[in-house]
Amino acid sequence: MKKTEIELIKEFMGEISSYIVDMYKKKEEVTVSTKKDETDFLTEVDLFVQKSFVKRVKAEFPDDIVVGEEAGLSNYPENYEGRAWIIDPIDGTANFVRSYFPAFVVAVAFANKRELLSSGVLVPITGDMFFAEKGSGAFGNGNRMQVSKKERLSESCIHLDFGKRSLRKERLLYFIEPLLTVGQVRCMGSAILSLVQVSLGIADGYVHASLRPWDYASGQLILEEAGGKITQTDGSPLQLFGDNKGIIASNGYIHEELLQVINKSLEKYEELRRI
Amino acid sequence: MKKTEIELIKEFMGEISSYIVDMYKKKEEVTVSTKKDETDFLTEVDLFVQKSFVKRVKAEFPDDIVVGEEAGLSNYPENYEGRAWIIDPIDGTANFVRSYFPAFVVAVAFANKRELLSSGVLVPITGDMFFAEKGSGAFGNGNRMQVSKKERLSESCIHLDFGKRSLRKERLLYFIEPLLTVGQVRCMGSAILSLVQVSLGIADGYVHASLRPWDYASGQLILEEAGGKITQTDGSPLQLFGDNKGIIASNGYIHEELLQVINKSLEKYEELRRI
Repeated sequence: MKKTEIELIKEFMGEISSYIVDMYKKKEEVTVSTKKDETDFLTEVDLFVQKSFVKRVKAEFPDDIVVGEEAGLSNYPENYEGRAWIIDPIDGTANFVRSYFPAFVVAVAFANKRELLSSGVLVPITGDMFFAEKGSGAFGNGNRMQVSKKERLSESCIHLDFGKRSLRKERLLYFIEPLLTVGQVRCMGSAILSLVQVSLGIADGYVHASLRPWDYASGQLILEEAGGKITQTDGSPLQLFGDNKGIIASNGYIHEELLQVINKSLEKYEELRRI
Repeated sequence: MKKTEIELIKEFMGEISSYIVDMYKKKEEVTVSTKKDETDFLTEVDLFVQKSFVKRVKAEFPDDIVVGEEAGLSNYPENYEGRAWIIDPIDGTANFVRSYFPAFVVAVAFANKRELLSSGVLVPITGDMFFAEKGSGAFGNGNRMQVSKKERLSESCIHLDFGKRSLRKERLLYFIEPLLTVGQVRCMGSAILSLVQVSLGIADGYVHASLRPWDYASGQLILEEAGGKITQTDGSPLQLFGDNKGIIASNGYIHEELLQVINKSLEKYEELRRI
């Protein structure tokens, strides 16, 4: 009998976990390279995880495409409508290489007709696994996930990431007014892990100026199934494989206020572009 | 025989750890209040840890003063020259209350004549303990701590915290240019834990616009003993119990570049004060 998509995701995560834990334990020996941007790391672990996943998808669903962060899978047909798998083999590679807490994840999603249908996130070192299927809720280690009920930005904990140096100036315009407005600010270095935290109700929002599909897709479905909201800066839905203006995620309750503050920020600090 | 200061610190941390771990496990039941600023949390755990420490110091060194973040101990004589203990019972209380990783610490330091002489940091949930004595090195779980050797900001991981909302506008001026310049940015929500990470060589610097003694003192001695550097924005030494302009910490190698970038930031974005 053919596997369902969520079954494939669950099996893959169960199998790949011990490999990553082993590699993390001996990470001094892991080959690390930087991509074009010297803040953007790549390890042999990223490559092996992605390769293993592609192999598995090809065996079960040979006609599906796989898009991913590494090794030539990052080009996808714009506004692709077919069956597609999206993988970030390690989201938070810089944290894999150096960090006190192991804030990195394996993130996988499946979409058809540009609609996210199944998703999984594995935190290898804690062993936590998060799964969601469209319309069926999100579950962390088997427990239903639910966003927080914070209603005001001033009492909210907002995550954001500054990402690659080359894009920071643009991003800063999104962030200044939120930085002055929200309760707490955290930068983890893994967009997916931040989205999972919003889905768990231990953070209230996540803001990014621009992300590729593997940076948010699996987190998006989990968040939506946990009762949260994720949109572009104008409040319109994210377009998978399309061009999104901003990735604004929240528990839903603070979403409107967050959008307002970000749009105010983009307007108010426009002149920073020229400084 | 009278205990030495570092002995008192080690004993206290060994004893208090299990209480904090227990309270963290049942943290849904812990009483949380906010101080003047709604982003500034206080729990019964902070109060109990501080009270236990004061009791212990008074028993061993009855003439010493104790300054601490909570409950009336936060006023200290300006430029105090005598024997003083400095405690942050929980640095990172917001993370105690809500977070995926338990990024909070107990931080204790001892100073005489405004010179830091002994210091300890406990991360209750990992069980990690970090200690330093002036001139004798810094040790994490018994292993010598050593800062990183990164020599350029562009390849460095810099931690910073935005802290209380009421002070963010001032802080932002310090941060903008660093945010555009450094390799990675992380915001943990615990200054001491960030200083410990620089001391361990897994981060390369920490920047804050202003901190009270309990937010940095124990981290400062550990960092200096691990080979790092910590100064005001003009490069001058920090004045314990005095008025410091900025708290800039690093592995030493990137210190000059970090100071330059921060001073450039303060100058270049001065006009943001008026926006």
